Amino acid sequence: MNIKYSQRINKICDPAVQNTLKIAGKKGIISLSGGIPNPALFPIKEIKTLFAKIIENDGQKVFQYNQTAGLPELRQEIALYLSKKWQKKIISDQILITSGSQQALDLLGKAFLDKNDDVLTENPTYFVALSAFNSYQVKYKTMELNKRGINIKQLENVLKKHSKQIKFAYVIPTYQNPTGICWSMNNRKEFILLAKKYQLLIVEDDPYGEIYFKRKPPPNLTELDNDNQTIYLNTYSKTFCPGLRVGYIVASKNIIEKLALIKQGMDLHSSTLSQVLVYHYIKQKVIYEKHLEKIRNYYRNNSDFMHYYLEKYLEKKGYWIHPDGGLFIWLTIPGKDCRKLYQKAIKAGVSFMPGYLFYAKNSQFNSLRLTFATASEEEIKKGIKILNDII
Amino acid sequence: MNIKYSQRINKICDPAVQNTLKIAGKKGIISLSGGIPNPALFPIKEIKTLFAKIIENDGQKVFQYNQTAGLPELRQEIALYLSKKWQKKIISDQILITSGSQQALDLLGKAFLDKNDDVLTENPTYFVALSAFNSYQVKYKTMELNKRGINIKQLENVLKKHSKQIKFAYVIPTYQNPTGICWSMNNRKEFILLAKKYQLLIVEDDPYGEIYFKRKPPPNLTELDNDNQTIYLNTYSKTFCPGLRVGYIVASKNIIEKLALIKQGMDLHSSTLSQVLVYHYIKQKVIYEKHLEKIRNYYRNNSDFMHYYLEKYLEKKGYWIHPDGGLFIWLTIPGKDCRKLYQKAIKAGVSFMPGYLFYAKNSQFNSLRLTFATASEEEIKKGIKILNDII
Repeated sequence: MNIKYSQRINKICDPAVQNTLKIAGKKGIISLSGGIPNPALFPIKEIKTLFAKIIENDGQKVFQYNQTAGLPELRQEIALYLSKKWQKKIISDQILITSGSQQALDLLGKAFLDKNDDVLTENPTYFVALSAFNSYQVKYKTMELNKRGINIKQLENVLKKHSKQIKFAYVIPTYQNPTGICWSMNNRKEFILLAKKYQLLIVEDDPYGEIYFKRKPPPNLTELDNDNQTIYLNTYSKTFCPGLRVGYIVASKNIIEKLALIKQGMDLHSSTLSQVLVYHYIKQKVIYEKHLEKIRNYYRNNSDFMHYYLEKYLEKKGYWIHPDGGLFIWLTIPGKDCRKLYQKAIKAGVSFMPGYLFYAKNSQFNSLRLTFATASEEEIKKGIKILNDII
Repeated sequence: MNIKYSQRINKICDPAVQNTLKIAGKKGIISLSGGIPNPALFPIKEIKTLFAKIIENDGQKVFQYNQTAGLPELRQEIALYLSKKWQKKIISDQILITSGSQQALDLLGKAFLDKNDDVLTENPTYFVALSAFNSYQVKYKTMELNKRGINIKQLENVLKKHSKQIKFAYVIPTYQNPTGICWSMNNRKEFILLAKKYQLLIVEDDPYGEIYFKRKPPPNLTELDNDNQTIYLNTYSKTFCPGLRVGYIVASKNIIEKLALIKQGMDLHSSTLSQVLVYHYIKQKVIYEKHLEKIRNYYRNNSDFMHYYLEKYLEKKGYWIHPDGGLFIWLTIPGKDCRKLYQKAIKAGVSFMPGYLFYAKNSQFNSLRLTFATASEEEIKKGIKILNDII
């Protein structure tokens, strides 16, 4: 029969992204593409021990339906953690557990976005966030980035003209995906001032904030905001295990109540088992902190390797930012088209994410996103060498 | 600040449902309300053994990102199972793993429903399905039910007038929620004939099909359909463990590909850990079949208890259908308003689901949904006795 899909379906996801991911995942190709944690970093032994204990004490609960807003003890633990980190009171009722940050993006889309609304984003930004928002048939206003964060003057111009159509700003201020940029303290403060002036709701996505290499990043926007103007997203996908699909949203109690009503229709609740495992792992504070230290060291070393080989092989052909945290290096090769480079790279045995996929509008074609998350030093060296050969 | 939600948010979920669930879950109240499996039926010991083995052999994979469409070996296992059950070839590419059936409903909404489209449903029907579809701002056409299924004449009248606006029919032909009705073989065949005649896409939700009490139910609509006109939903929430949130969709390869593109923006993929556990459990075919037998016996006994006490206490005040499977009995008390009964029942220490919540339109107020899923014989007796006292 003739299947009639919804109008939104054509806007949802560029098949180019799917194809890129499929090719990038092929065996025998050095992957500098996916933002996928190195599985050697998963604390598998500890999880095994924890699981045996949990199922002994709490077996029936772990496999049963649970509350839509999330496992009460996990919400409580996160609230305590953030209250301490941010030095301000966060309560359980301000926390909603999601199936990874990706579900949070879809949920916020459903809660706030009507057809033809505007979303304000950094340009470039995380492309699967765009895919989530696209399903609500929105348009974009964008902010340019520089080494210290967003271009504030340009932002004020955008807000002067368009603040009424913009439902929220979606931003990744700390070790941004794809650029690795970390907004300076000053940049954050200026952004919040403008957001207040123009009554702009902020969605702050912070998956990489714990993965800093030298010093801690500046405070979160949500930490600096005292007017509940910010909705904060985080995930355990980069700092614990992505396969569990556990993330969370922090917002005012009122917003969280609305979001829980919506989430009920989306999946009733996130996996109880996953939530219980995360809860029992993170509440062992010393062990979790040690684990984070291990992750930071690992990614710092890998980022240094990549920086070293980029300097060795590509210094004269391109430029990049040596990141202070996160998983990515954004490489720009003036005069080159990353789509053509990508075809050549795959043939030569190395994958990356072509930069144009990350633009909400006005795509640029001369950049590419490299990740140092999964490859070994040897693979990073070989990968960058291949890139040099084909450029 | 003044938060501006999307227009859809007011349609999404009736706070009455949330309030009912909250009250119904209070301690000290006999719950005849939630369609929640008895946790004593979860095969916890076996899961513990399985988990230890899985993490030994496959630890890194279990906690890593996975494919959006689902764990390949689980899709394969389900395809094999259905091919055998339905005596027709189903391939992995026709299966998409979802986070419970609830996510499947949201996903189908996103794939097919535009604002002001019509959805055709049984009336009454599963209320959280309505909540998922409501978020796409749709309207409803409905089909009346009788003991043998839907009213075919009335359906043909609806299709004659409205088939062009109807995007799909959402139906639960086997041990329906909330009525427990099982469509007869004849009813199923007539429905499919009409669906073909009017090019109606069918969404068949089948969470209770394995929970039959005496003989197997008639074939699924999807089994009878040879033109890929049916999208089939199932879940392991009732037959294994709801806390894992694992369900699946069966459709043509083309539809599954589109759905996977959409699901990527919704949550990237469902919990890898949950999928691995389900896979390893169901592939032990003899153990899984024994487990299903145990579940069927348990629910059959409980349904018989409830039927017995209904006859004993309420035969002259109301009528109901003694179900052949599933988890529910739909009790009608002529002349009574279930909203008022509900208030009295809660005070007297027993909860049920007020029937009016299940109507897509033209709500009736003299029915209530009882479940025999979690209560003991003693509790069922006491609960029905209380109902008799307050009626």
